[in-house]
Amino acid sequence: MTEQEIINIVCKGIVKAPQKYGVGDDAAATATDVAVTHDTMIEGVHFDDKLTAEDIGWKIVAVNVSDIAAMGARPDWATLSLSVPSKISEKWVREMSTGLHKALKHWNIRLIGGDTTRSPGPIILSMCMGSMRSRTWTFKSTAQAGNDIWVTGTLGDAAVGFFHHGENPLNKALQRPEPPVSLAYALHNFGLITAMTDVSDGLYVDLQHMCTTSKVGAIIEPDQLPESSFVYKKKDALAYKTMFGEDYELLFAATPSMEDLIKQTAAKYRIPVRKIGRFVSDDTVCKLSGMEWPKPLFSHF
Amino acid sequence: MTEQEIINIVCKGIVKAPQKYGVGDDAAATATDVAVTHDTMIEGVHFDDKLTAEDIGWKIVAVNVSDIAAMGARPDWATLSLSVPSKISEKWVREMSTGLHKALKHWNIRLIGGDTTRSPGPIILSMCMGSMRSRTWTFKSTAQAGNDIWVTGTLGDAAVGFFHHGENPLNKALQRPEPPVSLAYALHNFGLITAMTDVSDGLYVDLQHMCTTSKVGAIIEPDQLPESSFVYKKKDALAYKTMFGEDYELLFAATPSMEDLIKQTAAKYRIPVRKIGRFVSDDTVCKLSGMEWPKPLFSHF
Repeated sequence: MTEQEIINIVCKGIVKAPQKYGVGDDAAATATDVAVTHDTMIEGVHFDDKLTAEDIGWKIVAVNVSDIAAMGARPDWATLSLSVPSKISEKWVREMSTGLHKALKHWNIRLIGGDTTRSPGPIILSMCMGSMRSRTWTFKSTAQAGNDIWVTGTLGDAAVGFFHHGENPLNKALQRPEPPVSLAYALHNFGLITAMTDVSDGLYVDLQHMCTTSKVGAIIEPDQLPESSFVYKKKDALAYKTMFGEDYELLFAATPSMEDLIKQTAAKYRIPVRKIGRFVSDDTVCKLSGMEWPKPLFSHF
Repeated sequence: MTEQEIINIVCKGIVKAPQKYGVGDDAAATATDVAVTHDTMIEGVHFDDKLTAEDIGWKIVAVNVSDIAAMGARPDWATLSLSVPSKISEKWVREMSTGLHKALKHWNIRLIGGDTTRSPGPIILSMCMGSMRSRTWTFKSTAQAGNDIWVTGTLGDAAVGFFHHGENPLNKALQRPEPPVSLAYALHNFGLITAMTDVSDGLYVDLQHMCTTSKVGAIIEPDQLPESSFVYKKKDALAYKTMFGEDYELLFAATPSMEDLIKQTAAKYRIPVRKIGRFVSDDTVCKLSGMEWPKPLFSHF
């Protein structure tokens, strides 16, 4: 079964898609004005020995922070369900906890609960995270035709970290992602954007979700996709930037009139932003201008 | 490493135990007046083929409901992280979802999000659940010397379901636990009780947690432990009632003056309640009157 087939069965009759408050967006807004997200990382599926225990502790926080940020919210609390084999070493637990605590402190998040269980095999970390209370959110489903498409930071660095591990120790994208929460919160609260999601499954997949839920199409300018020196001149650069994921950057929509304000705001938070294309009314279109999308590189499922 | 050693490292420096708002109680109260709990069930650790897919879907909801109930709260929303091997059958997903939806409907809980990932081996369900907003909670850490010790329902039925599976199909305690949420909410809101927890790890373990966090001792009358006809005359009856767990009943403390009101309230909700002992000031005591605790039967870790 595909991931989507499973989701369709599990969610059948509970929520209607596309919806604004519920399953389907990056995080879900509760009746108590809190956005909640829940992400799981399993050894051998979401991480291997390219990540240290400390990286893993950092990353389970970061991937959830990314979903909260994409709602235009700020993280507040988290619960962690940790499942480890009986033979786990104290060293591993200590190092994982160091990364966990660093990330929680970095984003000022309180760990308020969870559970610890034995795993018959892989290490499993499952984190639920709640946002500060808010009365408004930015959804992925509200992009409009004519909006510019923007992305933060650079794309493809985690892919380079995965496929060329050890090549450049300065590239921490795969191990220590740092979603731009403060910028996301500002963009949302200053009313500069119309829709937002995070780039976790790759630009191609996340952009498609945005198009489908917003009922619009998209045209991306491939030469505008921001890349770092890690990605520069790599043979598969375009695939790394669009088909891998784990970028934990923001993908957002805005009216053209907001361009200067967006650039000024991003500069204030020292986060690079780039206009990479535009949303169009033809919802059958989701393409790279002048070329095909590269082949998928990787699937977590 | 033991479960507690792992918890101590993961939680070090984040919260002080015993505390009222944070890691350590059945659920954690957030700054937004919502109690949150997070429980995980792993194939081969928390369930095996004694549970059908439909049972599993029901039970992941029920075990979280039990924690919310123990805070004197009502469940509101849930997120589910589901990890399954690629070869999972659609039949399994459908049946699990049927149990899940039945339980969500039974307790009027909205499934608001989560994620679906591939598992390299066991099926893993991790659920986070939030309560309705509340300004007050019942903690496990506030029992007082002189309080009566009460328990709801009967103890040991899940143990019989586990060790004598198939003996009596009417005994659904292991497969379809039904925590008494409405009674818990009433006991809390009518101010009838001083402390509460749920019996998930066995009376012995959960009572010890209550004693340790409340800094009191406890003396239990073994002939007062409520048992159903499933447990009656079983050789290991006392161990089933105290050392197995998965009862998902409530264990609570109340002043002796509340006895009649507690009985009347429980009768209204048609939930049996039983006074099984008393809390004492000597916090070195946690015993069965006139006999030793049986040996542990089972550990999830």
